[in-house]
Amino acid sequence: MTKNINIAILGASGYTGAELIHILLAHSHVSIKALTGDSSAGKDIAEVYPHLRFKDLPKLITIAQVDFAKIDLVFCCLPHGTSQPVIAKLPKHLKIIDLSADFRLADPALYKQWYGHGHQAVALQKEAVYGLTEIHRAQIKKARLIANPGCYPTSAQLPLIPLLKAKAILPGGIIIDAKSGVTGAGRKVAQNMLFTEIDGGINAYGIANHRHTPEIEQGLGTTVTFTPHLMPMNRGILSTIYVKLAGKNTADDLRAILLKAYKNEPFVHILPEGISPSTHQVRGTNDCVIGVFADRIKGQAILVSVIDNLVKGASGQAVQNMNVMFDWPEETGLQLTALFP
Amino acid sequence: MTKNINIAILGASGYTGAELIHILLAHSHVSIKALTGDSSAGKDIAEVYPHLRFKDLPKLITIAQVDFAKIDLVFCCLPHGTSQPVIAKLPKHLKIIDLSADFRLADPALYKQWYGHGHQAVALQKEAVYGLTEIHRAQIKKARLIANPGCYPTSAQLPLIPLLKAKAILPGGIIIDAKSGVTGAGRKVAQNMLFTEIDGGINAYGIANHRHTPEIEQGLGTTVTFTPHLMPMNRGILSTIYVKLAGKNTADDLRAILLKAYKNEPFVHILPEGISPSTHQVRGTNDCVIGVFADRIKGQAILVSVIDNLVKGASGQAVQNMNVMFDWPEETGLQLTALFP
Amino acid sequence: MTKNINIAILGASGYTGAELIHILLAHSHVSIKALTGDSSAGKDIAEVYPHLRFKDLPKLITIAQVDFAKIDLVFCCLPHGTSQPVIAKLPKHLKIIDLSADFRLADPALYKQWYGHGHQAVALQKEAVYGLTEIHRAQIKKARLIANPGCYPTSAQLPLIPLLKAKAILPGGIIIDAKSGVTGAGRKVAQNMLFTEIDGGINAYGIANHRHTPEIEQGLGTTVTFTPHLMPMNRGILSTIYVKLAGKNTADDLRAILLKAYKNEPFVHILPEGISPSTHQVRGTNDCVIGVFADRIKGQAILVSVIDNLVKGASGQAVQNMNVMFDWPEETGLQLTALFP
Amino acid sequence: MTKNINIAILGASGYTGAELIHILLAHSHVSIKALTGDSSAGKDIAEVYPHLRFKDLPKLITIAQVDFAKIDLVFCCLPHGTSQPVIAKLPKHLKIIDLSADFRLADPALYKQWYGHGHQAVALQKEAVYGLTEIHRAQIKKARLIANPGCYPTSAQLPLIPLLKAKAILPGGIIIDAKSGVTGAGRKVAQNMLFTEIDGGINAYGIANHRHTPEIEQGLGTTVTFTPHLMPMNRGILSTIYVKLAGKNTADDLRAILLKAYKNEPFVHILPEGISPSTHQVRGTNDCVIGVFADRIKGQAILVSVIDNLVKGASGQAVQNMNVMFDWPEETGLQLTALFP
Repeated sequence: MTKNINIAILGASGYTGAELIHILLAHSHVSIKALTGDSSAGKDIAEVYPHLRFKDLPKLITIAQVDFAKIDLVFCCLPHGTSQPVIAKLPKHLKIIDLSADFRLADPALYKQWYGHGHQAVALQKEAVYGLTEIHRAQIKKARLIANPGCYPTSAQLPLIPLLKAKAILPGGIIIDAKSGVTGAGRKVAQNMLFTEIDGGINAYGIANHRHTPEIEQGLGTTVTFTPHLMPMNRGILSTIYVKLAGKNTADDLRAILLKAYKNEPFVHILPEGISPSTHQVRGTNDCVIGVFADRIKGQAILVSVIDNLVKGASGQAVQNMNVMFDWPEETGLQLTALFP
Repeated sequence: MTKNINIAILGASGYTGAELIHILLAHSHVSIKALTGDSSAGKDIAEVYPHLRFKDLPKLITIAQVDFAKIDLVFCCLPHGTSQPVIAKLPKHLKIIDLSADFRLADPALYKQWYGHGHQAVALQKEAVYGLTEIHRAQIKKARLIANPGCYPTSAQLPLIPLLKAKAILPGGIIIDAKSGVTGAGRKVAQNMLFTEIDGGINAYGIANHRHTPEIEQGLGTTVTFTPHLMPMNRGILSTIYVKLAGKNTADDLRAILLKAYKNEPFVHILPEGISPSTHQVRGTNDCVIGVFADRIKGQAILVSVIDNLVKGASGQAVQNMNVMFDWPEETGLQLTALFP
Repeated sequence: MTKNINIAILGASGYTGAELIHILLAHSHVSIKALTGDSSAGKDIAEVYPHLRFKDLPKLITIAQVDFAKIDLVFCCLPHGTSQPVIAKLPKHLKIIDLSADFRLADPALYKQWYGHGHQAVALQKEAVYGLTEIHRAQIKKARLIANPGCYPTSAQLPLIPLLKAKAILPGGIIIDAKSGVTGAGRKVAQNMLFTEIDGGINAYGIANHRHTPEIEQGLGTTVTFTPHLMPMNRGILSTIYVKLAGKNTADDLRAILLKAYKNEPFVHILPEGISPSTHQVRGTNDCVIGVFADRIKGQAILVSVIDNLVKGASGQAVQNMNVMFDWPEETGLQLTALFP
Repeated sequence: MTKNINIAILGASGYTGAELIHILLAHSHVSIKALTGDSSAGKDIAEVYPHLRFKDLPKLITIAQVDFAKIDLVFCCLPHGTSQPVIAKLPKHLKIIDLSADFRLADPALYKQWYGHGHQAVALQKEAVYGLTEIHRAQIKKARLIANPGCYPTSAQLPLIPLLKAKAILPGGIIIDAKSGVTGAGRKVAQNMLFTEIDGGINAYGIANHRHTPEIEQGLGTTVTFTPHLMPMNRGILSTIYVKLAGKNTADDLRAILLKAYKNEPFVHILPEGISPSTHQVRGTNDCVIGVFADRIKGQAILVSVIDNLVKGASGQAVQNMNVMFDWPEETGLQLTALFP
């Protein structure tokens, strides 16, 4: 077991970067050695994130200025599409956890179809391990490059994968209706992300064409209907998932399967019958909490899963993957209690 | 055409009562003559609603104190279950619009099944006309007692009824995933309605057993899956509705059917292809705005409808029904523009 | 009395423009003939403001495209600093209400000091009448160009001017601690205006150097301490104002003076002793509501005033001024009830 | 140094109780042995706080059921007025940190004046040490009973005490204009605390008569003007404080004094000139961040301080005091980074 490692965060001025800093400041095996920011290089982190002013952190620099020889692991928090060329050039001794979508789709053709341009690092795409920790732990342990899952896909796959694997639900007709907090959009400065435009309302977006759809489908091995919604809160995704029961399975059977699948998992929790989860209870934590309900319509069930999109849906799961890669207890730095209220 | 009428609002201290006052203060044919409040009788409206302090409004009184001889129409905003005995005793010259759920279910057995007790005014239940204005206008015109629709049912029925009638969608497998603002719960003083417990999170509730389900099913003539969610905003319901296309119908066909069905309606609007509605655009209005989308899964489509639950979902539709009953232009007092931001 | 007029809104894609449209759509004497937008020229208003999609409104055009010959009055909602050259070139038959800060400061030297550049239309600056309706009604009636007051200055001057005039409070030591909703910043796309950066927190800004300070001081004829705060709500300003009593005056005396000063005013309301106003009660209205309190410290009093910054603090007062200029009842189009909740 | 202690939380179903649990679950020297709840006795903590469901915590019991023989320290989170009789009866071996207002005022006459009834444990009131850690650390170290400070008083005293002590500001004319999140009101189920009544607005309350006033005055040794405001956010207090400079002191001098006073303090931070704090940057932390500004009016300055009312304003400071009492490093369990966004 490695005792201590040095890490760099590329793209530290976005929300997933800030959340990594938040978590890693309390992680017992990690030193934050480099933070990069494109337009913010040269600035103190306090200028970018006032809440980090009084922490002992390096200045923001450019990627070119990072001395990677002293770094053991890189968290790459660059925007989608820009990670590929950067990661392709990184020294080979580095372990890399990429929080963008760039390496999540294993099939280059699928990538091109959804992102509109060819992948620029196909060999790495092949090497990358999809970092849904509970499902791919064994491969993550040996991986050099992790494609950290998207927030919506995490919230959808954790409840669905064990049920599909157990053939307790049908692969067809799955509907995922997801409601997300605004941090899911990152720190993008756009009119539709202004407080004035978000507060007090909700809308669906990316209906039938959101880019997280192929990622979910790759994980599930089946096509799905996926509708994301943007709502006025900062953190949290709640996915309401409609499934068709296979054979004589009941909602109680589904719950039992999930309870068994996750019984030793520290971060995935299945609620008792009749209890519905709220995103409140996972805010600031790496937890995924799942409720299972019988529908009134025979042969159908409803799953509700909640995560904090910035933690289990991004930076927390990234740290969880790091813990796996370095053989530390998986909960290191992640024994978090929800901030409520 | 009656020129001017006198109205009473029973249960004026709740949000639907306040919203009625809001609308009726600007209605050219109506005088508010009586406001009742159970625990607030004797108080000035300003003590209950500071935003109504400087308006010319009567004091709150008990129902027993109302001189119904001078009243033409009563809006009944009492809690569910308490309207029945009150309305049963009202003088017969009164027209009545009941905003509770008490008279919405035509079948007394169904009422008993969902509300746990027998109906106390079965004759009235038979007489009551369901007040979904666009659908039941002809009967509303001649009615004495209107059962004003629930908020969720309004948001679900307006998009679905014309499509089912045209047999463009299948009656089976309809899923209604609805997201509501907090005013939908009324002014109920309960721990789970505190700002501290609501702000910053979302949860589903009443999964597979919400009492609006039979009301929706009665209107549609088919069983549905209905999941309501409570989210941190005050006004608005967004219903995301998953439907199965009948025969060779496409999403474009559905849109065309809805456009035709509502082409002369002042309050129901169908969006062009690719445009998704937001509750922001109906806040404070009597509008229902509907978007229609093809799903990636063949044979399915997605409808998104938005209303303001307090207006088209309650008090606005009540005023619309009053306008129909008194033969006034249906938009009287309801030519409202959304308050945005 | 002019029966009907045609108006143009320059800069209609900002929030004050949208609020003018909101109000004027229900104004009985006004037709909206032209809407201009710099970057949005050529677009339908629905692309800029979805909540105005189903209204009968002209397309957005450039200022150069407006046929001013057919226009009677122009509302100018352009950003501060850009109104001057535009207004200077407008045909002289037009009445103009400018909602920017450009013509509010009568002294060109003071303008230069606070805005960092010389005024570009000094003659117009001299001609402009400051549009705090309740105070300058007589001059507004005869004016051609109105400098519509700022939001903070409106909330501060309405309670203070009558008290200073009556010499009931001392001119020295006035402290105005103001809390504003986010629409006060306009529709500016900036990182610090994102939902994610605003929700759940509050900060002071422009401490001791906010540009509304000289406007307030000009109106009061004395120097003041003014601290604005930005808080997570869309509409509303609450100003808590600390004053020193002159001679033997008490808080009750101040309240009596204000009650007398505003007794015939439709939009300014003074609360009874012990009642504190909330911005909730003015949301969406042209009202200013004021409470007066004795401090525990002898010789001091506390005033609390609330307005909706977009209405009485901008577009509502602009319409009020138009009503005065055209000799219509001052409440025309402004008999609004607060949208609560 | 004691290695490990057992603690009990009386009144664990309120927000300060939940926040204590949040902090103590990660505290290396503490075991939570008992949680009491009046109406919730017998319940699992998950029924009261779903976000604590998967934590290893004892059931809620009554105070009478607590085996105090096994407890070393009690955190008392009972409502104001109810702590006195309970604490009076507790075994004498216990250390006690009381988070209510019951023991904060040293003078029984003052207590009676503000709370309307005589104090029921005057001897304990004499014994209690006021737990503003940075100011009273020496006495806290030796104390048995700590009166943990109120949230507003903490935010006001930390910036003011060193300045008054240094005679850099005048004791007269201090004005504290404070803006608080809703958790400051506790988990009280009241109509004015509903989401619907709070969201989207702000109001002042307790003007000139809030019960935190005498606590602030006791700490400062001078009378003050104090105006609290309730605003739509969950956590955070921002106090804007207006002071008169003594002699030739400047705002820069004040900043220098505060920097020196707090230079070795882990939780109190003074911002550089021109930087204004936001409550965002202290959310979920035990920090107090202070900005100092020159006013435009000569001889005056403006201080802005921010805290999280549930942490430094309540439970965090309580844990800080416990750390002092048991001679542990003061930051134990409190090395928290703000949850932003």
